[in-house]
Amino acid sequence: MPASPIRKLTPYADQAKLDGKHVYHLNIGQPDIETPQLMLDAVRNIDFKVWAYTPSEGTASYRNKLSGYYNKLGYDIAPGDILVTNGGSEALTIVMQACVNPGEEIIIPEPFYANYKSFASSAGIVIQPILSHIDDGFALPPITDFEKLITENTRAIAICSPNNPTGYLYSRQEMEALRDLCLNYDLFLIADEAYREFCYDEKEFISPMHLEGLDQHVVIVDTVSKRYSACGARLGCLITKNKSLWQMALKFAQARLSPPAVAQIAAEAAVDTPESYFEAVKQEYTARRNVLVAGLNRIPGVFCPNPGGAFYVLARLPIDDADRFCQWMLEHFSHENQTVMMAPASGFYSTAGSGADEVRLAYVLNCDDLRKALVCLEKGLESYPGRRSK
Amino acid sequence: MPASPIRKLTPYADQAKLDGKHVYHLNIGQPDIETPQLMLDAVRNIDFKVWAYTPSEGTASYRNKLSGYYNKLGYDIAPGDILVTNGGSEALTIVMQACVNPGEEIIIPEPFYANYKSFASSAGIVIQPILSHIDDGFALPPITDFEKLITENTRAIAICSPNNPTGYLYSRQEMEALRDLCLNYDLFLIADEAYREFCYDEKEFISPMHLEGLDQHVVIVDTVSKRYSACGARLGCLITKNKSLWQMALKFAQARLSPPAVAQIAAEAAVDTPESYFEAVKQEYTARRNVLVAGLNRIPGVFCPNPGGAFYVLARLPIDDADRFCQWMLEHFSHENQTVMMAPASGFYSTAGSGADEVRLAYVLNCDDLRKALVCLEKGLESYPGRRSK
Ligand SMILES: Cc1ncc(COP(=O)(O)O)c(C=O)c1O
Ligand SMILES: Cc1ncc(COP(=O)(O)O)c(C=O)c1O
Repeated sequence: MPASPIRKLTPYADQAKLDGKHVYHLNIGQPDIETPQLMLDAVRNIDFKVWAYTPSEGTASYRNKLSGYYNKLGYDIAPGDILVTNGGSEALTIVMQACVNPGEEIIIPEPFYANYKSFASSAGIVIQPILSHIDDGFALPPITDFEKLITENTRAIAICSPNNPTGYLYSRQEMEALRDLCLNYDLFLIADEAYREFCYDEKEFISPMHLEGLDQHVVIVDTVSKRYSACGARLGCLITKNKSLWQMALKFAQARLSPPAVAQIAAEAAVDTPESYFEAVKQEYTARRNVLVAGLNRIPGVFCPNPGGAFYVLARLPIDDADRFCQWMLEHFSHENQTVMMAPASGFYSTAGSGADEVRLAYVLNCDDLRKALVCLEKGLESYPGRRSK
Repeated sequence: MPASPIRKLTPYADQAKLDGKHVYHLNIGQPDIETPQLMLDAVRNIDFKVWAYTPSEGTASYRNKLSGYYNKLGYDIAPGDILVTNGGSEALTIVMQACVNPGEEIIIPEPFYANYKSFASSAGIVIQPILSHIDDGFALPPITDFEKLITENTRAIAICSPNNPTGYLYSRQEMEALRDLCLNYDLFLIADEAYREFCYDEKEFISPMHLEGLDQHVVIVDTVSKRYSACGARLGCLITKNKSLWQMALKFAQARLSPPAVAQIAAEAAVDTPESYFEAVKQEYTARRNVLVAGLNRIPGVFCPNPGGAFYVLARLPIDDADRFCQWMLEHFSHENQTVMMAPASGFYSTAGSGADEVRLAYVLNCDDLRKALVCLEKGLESYPGRRSK
């Protein structure tokens, strides 16, 4: 059996209480937001007799409807550019395998979504991390840093904007710099847009699909998980106008036969979700982010940039080691019989030792709970034996 | 981009007519049987507000209920031995990766389910095929043939009984021989039981889970796709009592977060499918197999063993090359404006040149259609330019 290539970071298991303590779960990316009614209604209204495989690339009907969603965003794509997958997770697996041979390399700004490591390592692909800094709010590292890492083995650059774990949203200027880089070195640009709908403060979302000249280089990874708070549907897709890349991805998709059938019916209905749904969700998340970021920065010794999207923040704490601190908060601390669960940031870095004093917090609880969690965190930091004064 | 590791054999895409010809689709494993009503009703009755991730290993509720299904079959397993997956396809991918390191080997009797190649090749695993013969009805090859192939790189033997593509059902004696082999050489026994419910002529189904002494060596791969004619649910599982193997599998499962939520609710309900459902389905398939096998053997020059399970037969035809013949049947032949689509067997062999005059036929159409398809096939063989007289 192989040595474990995968580090467990995000336990999605039901976890209620520890020793009867109430735990605020700020560690996971499962939103508490309701799934749009018309999506659930579509599930309740299924009327087939045989729950059959769909085409490996997804049903024609769903791909047609879905292309309309992207066209509205200003992506100039056709239904035939879409390949439907078992969640964004499978889209990532397939895209990596279709773009990159075993032994070849992808450059990814770190910190990055921890499971990228698992998908790459399963396929024998090497990730070259490139450090982005908390003091810059996790902005795009200088292009010259990328250029230093590019070798003849480099096949792709992968980005995620708005980002998990940092929440950072790339600006138009940053996206254009990436475009020029990919064109100059003939690299694929893999863009994970799982959090596209979650951009705040009227900031503009820029996709590589909005940029000229990149058609043959871009692959978008998408999912309905966060967009419609439908994580359990397990439905995602990849989009590329590069036909040979699409065909290669199809080979992998054919091996696993089909994406889920009912989820496609539901997600097709979900394309008609009214704009008001997203507006309400964005308003809620903006309020939560404001509470969380302001509250964190008020705690002595804590620094947290104010991110433009997603529903995560990455904060630096005055501690020796975030793994130890997070564990201690769960096992040895409570304030009024409550504590907070966070994800140590080390798991999102690929360079050993990076992010040792950082944690990721997901604002998947309401503002009241966030305020209570902030009090716990502040009290915890006061009594934590590994506290650092700096 | 990597050279395609995958050969497309089974197009599950909607395919209606070619040049207006009616095509009998005997090439694919999509049954026409109705999904049990109580399974579809469970989908229609979902009552959650947030379509959330489930635990990566599946919900406690589904795993509990499902273990009851296996216990009834005489498997001595606990809910904790089950790990729920995105179809049998993902179970196979995870099991291979959990049992075998890149560069190491699995021995599989050929012909075998073509996608095993894709899953192995994606993981850098080598398949050592071991030939089973049509003249023996595709019985288990002699154990000494296995022993010749075993090296220090061999980690597992994979079997599928009842088999796709041959329909062959291993006897108790054959299963015991495999057990002794795996114990002697300390190999994992991976048993794909996708067609467990489809055993005919009162023949006994023997799982490795029925045999003594194999607890630490066996992994079962299962799926609801064929059992309940619910291929589009994308729900399968792996089962093993080997705790370190299960934990390793869990790491891969955690990377993709969750299996589908609604499918688990539906499959939990489906465990209560009455025995009468399976009896009716088995009766139907037995009748179809009888029509198909008798009809094939009546055609001059054709030989088809009578398999004990699944819904496939593998037949030898009096032709030069099955790839060419199947293509010709589609493109250049019709009888009363009809033709037959079959899967050339070469795709199920890993040894080049094997099975060149064999085709797989899936009896997923009713007896009347099968009879008409047989007439087409007979007429086709009469006028095919590459016919061989032997
Ligand atoms: C950045 C990012 N990409 C992809 C995924 C995968 O999501 P899913 O497989 O549910 O579509 C996630 C899930 O949290 C994520 O955060
Ligand atoms: C032998 C065998 N194993 C596994 C599978 C995978 O089935 P699924 O992914 O639909 O569960 C199939 C599908 O045809 C099969 O024939």
